[in-house]
Amino acid sequence: MTERKTTLKDRVRAVRAEALESDGRVRAVIDAVRPCVDGGRFAAKRVEGEVVTVEADCFTDGHDALRVLLRWRAADASVWQEQEMAHDVNDLWRGSFVAGPPGRYVYTVVAWVDHFISWRHELGRRSDPEDLVLAVLVGAKLAREAAARAEREDRSALTDWSNRLEQGAKRCEGEPRAQALKALALQPDFAKLVMRYPDRSLETVWPDALPLVVDRLRARYSTWYELFPRSTSPDPARHGTLKDVIARLPYVAELGFDVLYLPPIHPIGRDKRKGRNNALVAAADDVGSPWAIGAAEGGHKAVHPALGTLEDFRALVKEAGACGIEIALDIAYQCAPDHPYVTAHPTWFRWRPDGSVQYAENPPKKYQDIYPFDFESADWRALWEELKSIFEFWIGQGVKIFRVDNPHTKAFPFWEWAIGALKQAHPELILLAEAFTRPKVMHRLAKLGYTQSYTYFAWRNTKYELTEYFTELCQGPGREYFRPNVWPNTPDILTEALQFGGRPVFMQRLALAATLAASYGIYGPAYELLEATPREPGSEEYLHSEKYQLRHWDLAQHDSLRAYIARMNRIRRDNPALQADSSLRFFPTDNEQLICYAKATDDGANQIVCVVNLDAHNTHSGWVELDLAALGIEPAMPYQMHDLITGARYLWHGARNFVQLDPQRSPAHIFRVHRRVHREQDFDYFM
Amino acid sequence: MTERKTTLKDRVRAVRAEALESDGRVRAVIDAVRPCVDGGRFAAKRVEGEVVTVEADCFTDGHDALRVLLRWRAADASVWQEQEMAHDVNDLWRGSFVAGPPGRYVYTVVAWVDHFISWRHELGRRSDPEDLVLAVLVGAKLAREAAARAEREDRSALTDWSNRLEQGAKRCEGEPRAQALKALALQPDFAKLVMRYPDRSLETVWPDALPLVVDRLRARYSTWYELFPRSTSPDPARHGTLKDVIARLPYVAELGFDVLYLPPIHPIGRDKRKGRNNALVAAADDVGSPWAIGAAEGGHKAVHPALGTLEDFRALVKEAGACGIEIALDIAYQCAPDHPYVTAHPTWFRWRPDGSVQYAENPPKKYQDIYPFDFESADWRALWEELKSIFEFWIGQGVKIFRVDNPHTKAFPFWEWAIGALKQAHPELILLAEAFTRPKVMHRLAKLGYTQSYTYFAWRNTKYELTEYFTELCQGPGREYFRPNVWPNTPDILTEALQFGGRPVFMQRLALAATLAASYGIYGPAYELLEATPREPGSEEYLHSEKYQLRHWDLAQHDSLRAYIARMNRIRRDNPALQADSSLRFFPTDNEQLICYAKATDDGANQIVCVVNLDAHNTHSGWVELDLAALGIEPAMPYQMHDLITGARYLWHGARNFVQLDPQRSPAHIFRVHRRVHREQDFDYFM
Repeated sequence: MTERKTTLKDRVRAVRAEALESDGRVRAVIDAVRPCVDGGRFAAKRVEGEVVTVEADCFTDGHDALRVLLRWRAADASVWQEQEMAHDVNDLWRGSFVAGPPGRYVYTVVAWVDHFISWRHELGRRSDPEDLVLAVLVGAKLAREAAARAEREDRSALTDWSNRLEQGAKRCEGEPRAQALKALALQPDFAKLVMRYPDRSLETVWPDALPLVVDRLRARYSTWYELFPRSTSPDPARHGTLKDVIARLPYVAELGFDVLYLPPIHPIGRDKRKGRNNALVAAADDVGSPWAIGAAEGGHKAVHPALGTLEDFRALVKEAGACGIEIALDIAYQCAPDHPYVTAHPTWFRWRPDGSVQYAENPPKKYQDIYPFDFESADWRALWEELKSIFEFWIGQGVKIFRVDNPHTKAFPFWEWAIGALKQAHPELILLAEAFTRPKVMHRLAKLGYTQSYTYFAWRNTKYELTEYFTELCQGPGREYFRPNVWPNTPDILTEALQFGGRPVFMQRLALAATLAASYGIYGPAYELLEATPREPGSEEYLHSEKYQLRHWDLAQHDSLRAYIARMNRIRRDNPALQADSSLRFFPTDNEQLICYAKATDDGANQIVCVVNLDAHNTHSGWVELDLAALGIEPAMPYQMHDLITGARYLWHGARNFVQLDPQRSPAHIFRVHRRVHREQDFDYFM
Repeated sequence: MTERKTTLKDRVRAVRAEALESDGRVRAVIDAVRPCVDGGRFAAKRVEGEVVTVEADCFTDGHDALRVLLRWRAADASVWQEQEMAHDVNDLWRGSFVAGPPGRYVYTVVAWVDHFISWRHELGRRSDPEDLVLAVLVGAKLAREAAARAEREDRSALTDWSNRLEQGAKRCEGEPRAQALKALALQPDFAKLVMRYPDRSLETVWPDALPLVVDRLRARYSTWYELFPRSTSPDPARHGTLKDVIARLPYVAELGFDVLYLPPIHPIGRDKRKGRNNALVAAADDVGSPWAIGAAEGGHKAVHPALGTLEDFRALVKEAGACGIEIALDIAYQCAPDHPYVTAHPTWFRWRPDGSVQYAENPPKKYQDIYPFDFESADWRALWEELKSIFEFWIGQGVKIFRVDNPHTKAFPFWEWAIGALKQAHPELILLAEAFTRPKVMHRLAKLGYTQSYTYFAWRNTKYELTEYFTELCQGPGREYFRPNVWPNTPDILTEALQFGGRPVFMQRLALAATLAASYGIYGPAYELLEATPREPGSEEYLHSEKYQLRHWDLAQHDSLRAYIARMNRIRRDNPALQADSSLRFFPTDNEQLICYAKATDDGANQIVCVVNLDAHNTHSGWVELDLAALGIEPAMPYQMHDLITGARYLWHGARNFVQLDPQRSPAHIFRVHRRVHREQDFDYFM
């Protein structure tokens, strides 16, 4: 048993009790404002220009009418914007605003019992002349009260209305006059005028201003390419450089990628350096793992001398920008034993009883080449500041996108603080969390501020797995804050599927990644050159992995997927339906090897239907069953399916249609749907 | 645009920012503690003696082990109780406590990264002797730190352990000694001792102490009978009295009801009194509607002189108690025009421009006999106090159960305040909300504190409707706070089904109510006497409704359902499975007119399976498909189904079994399941 403390909830309750004490006449009820992540503890995410739709359940006692407004503002703004919300059904109210420039925003809902609207609604249903006269007098009084609240230019108009109604009521005798008076009191102009000056003295405000993070478009739609700079030399005998990467930019641009992500470019530790294929002892000429960061030449803020200089890096950022490509860097918070931090800040590490630093371990495995930071260090404040300053250093070199290595092995409160501070100063930042771990941990990182998240996509292969997983990603509660970035391979992940499926499976997994998710990436040139040999049977590690050695890649290899990838990324660029995830819906097929799904823009102007053969070895055919209503297709009208990969056009009719896919030729249809309009005179397939 | 205010969330955020500043080394994460109603804004509900299971998602960065405790206390207690929570799967932790006596409680979760458990877990996986020695030295240090936190009696034991481990580490040479040392360090006694004194300096506390309302058992399981006292006279010519109700108690007890609910027993207004069948003008001898409360004789705190005196009422409460029956009163906050409040407190009502009080209206309908209170009255504080005092007055007369008339037409903040205050002083109170309105409004009232709620049961007749509705009630989010009380009829509701189905439908709807819901009620003697004539075709009102006139009932009527009802209520009393709702599950049948469902106690000791023929006119047969795993039945073993209505016993086998129900004889099977145990030597059907 422990002492009771005053909890946060106690304080909240006190605040609410106070509100309750303050005015019991506040009768409008607001409930369940959404989107709402963990009761407002974390922010929902949108991108600039997106329509932010907010819903709430609002009602009051009895039959009175409500007026409900959506309120929002930039987090640091001093005034609220307000927008009318509309009632849908069963007390559900809905309103929206357009997300402004990147930054933090807040929104909430305000509602009040509106006596004027209630009065007008009841007036419309009255018929008894005597009642009408009394009711019109009440309306005149409401108008006079509105006049008292009105701005100068409307005050006299409202007073005039009030007078007209009162005089009409005085002179009202007999049914026809009463009906004329009713018609006058119901005039829309009158309502519009009064509603400009509502009595909000008893309004209810949803007490939680819910947070919203607005990012730039690339946070939602991005196409990543990862390469090891040291393997980009045209000369197989020479260590690649950042200048070589600059020379590689046109190739990356030709393939259609807009983010070029580089593994760590810092000096690599010599102490306990790993050899080729993760050998415990390195040979003299072994280059080591880029993730074993830090050596005499410097740490996380230095460029590996073999790659070039900070000037070279800045030149790369600039040249990439000219090609429409952003450079993404890797942030890996760990140190090689010879990292300068280890001697400069011994308190940032944990020490063992024998006086050595505690290296990374997962018994019986040991990673003697990596020292993790101790987030329980007494000097944690200085550690946090220094870690954040690594981001700031590279932001200073022009980097706006970071991929963060294993963020789930660093203390969560650090991320909330660091990302919050970094994005406050640089709202355009994009942070990709490389956490392949348990689902709740991955979600927490997304809630704490990560812009994008790696996923389990690499291990989701069957129709059931893909349908379940992407339905959860796009329609589950995480859709408000967890943005998937899917990778068919990474330097750490050569899946069993890729090892045994040959070229068809590389095409199939690329097509799935590029169409199921608005953000995806590949680790190249391994991917387009179909690299598929594991270190040993059963391993997901590459043989001769670039993590531990230089590689030379023949980009002109005859079976390269470069043209296929370029086509796929072109399709993504041309079709906004593929640049967001929330519209994803799966359709039934009668063949377990055929998966069918669709994406569309909010206005339905761009609609994509994909059918993918999941069997890399056999041709499959079957019937797909589209949801015509969801696609906005008239059941009786044929429609054209335009395959954006092959250019073929098919005339389909009704929900059930036949498909056949040969994985050797093209394992996927990516159809743009051209609806036929329903009037003959407007005949046109190409809407 | 309006001025920005400091919102509640801003304050919450400030509190959290402060927490973040205070110690960044707090690494345990607690997420989604549940049950949790609207983020802790409202209380979950349980009854005394129920096991309250609390779940939370807890984890930390990396691989360290957590320790997680559930904390709870009575809301006004000063110390927390703590109970270990256990990890299930995927970061889900679960713990529980037994709900104490009725009252308000709070609970929360606390977690910390436990270095001792982490150390022990890693030690178990170590094998290298050198590592083991170092690890044991770390363990010795942890033990020494625990000793510093320990109570006197354990301090020396911990110091001893620390010394033994250190000496063992010093003397450790070679593999066998290292393994022995490991075994010593892993001794459960040692772990148990250290874990008694954990280092909680960096613990995380879920900031919201979540509220829980604990009620007495009758809040969950109650059987209601409604009657009009004025119709209980044995002499058809005489107005019934409370003394007549006392004489009726043995009958109500014989039928097995434990709550006897009386419509308002107060003086009835004379001004604008309604006549028989809701006639606008009452005849001289018309008794008026009991809901038109208040006249010269008094208002909500008086007894109608024709019914008797306050002494008679207290006698009724006492006599009922002796029969195991509680008296429930009706609280209807509305006034007849001649209610004393109208002249004493004119500001509690709204006035019309002609100087008259605004009566209740729903244009073009007018209810001139009822004045609603104006909850926007400037004098609302006095109004609130007076309304609350009506409850307090009747509580003073021994009433603990109230049915509240149309609570959704009174301001919601009033209910939260009034119910909160009343239940704080009288935690045994049970309040039933008579709100037949939109779902979110009904849910709000339950959240605000109502113990039980009327439902849409009366209008849910088909298999689809019943399955959907009761699945939502018992498994939807409302299950934490919305306790259904289902009524096949009320004085206001004579459904179409009852009008046309004859005796079989009365039996069928009773069986459904009594088994689908742990709390149900009937309006009698209309129900058991099969009263089914509407005021006019298409109406749900009774002809010659007791709401407006006296009725005389012949309780000895030959086709009365009294025996059937008594049997049903006996079954409910004997079978705890029927005394709660959370276990309700539906099973498929191959006939749309047959519905099948089951309820069980948590321990599975009492299991009830019901099959009901929903067609009042025809015999139906078909196959039901039980979920044997859910029922704990071995697939290969036969089991006995004991029909508690007819007494018949059937031997069933496997999931699919045949049933046939003749609605004229008995439209429902209510089976108690007797499982056969799987060992032959323990053969017994009657577990």
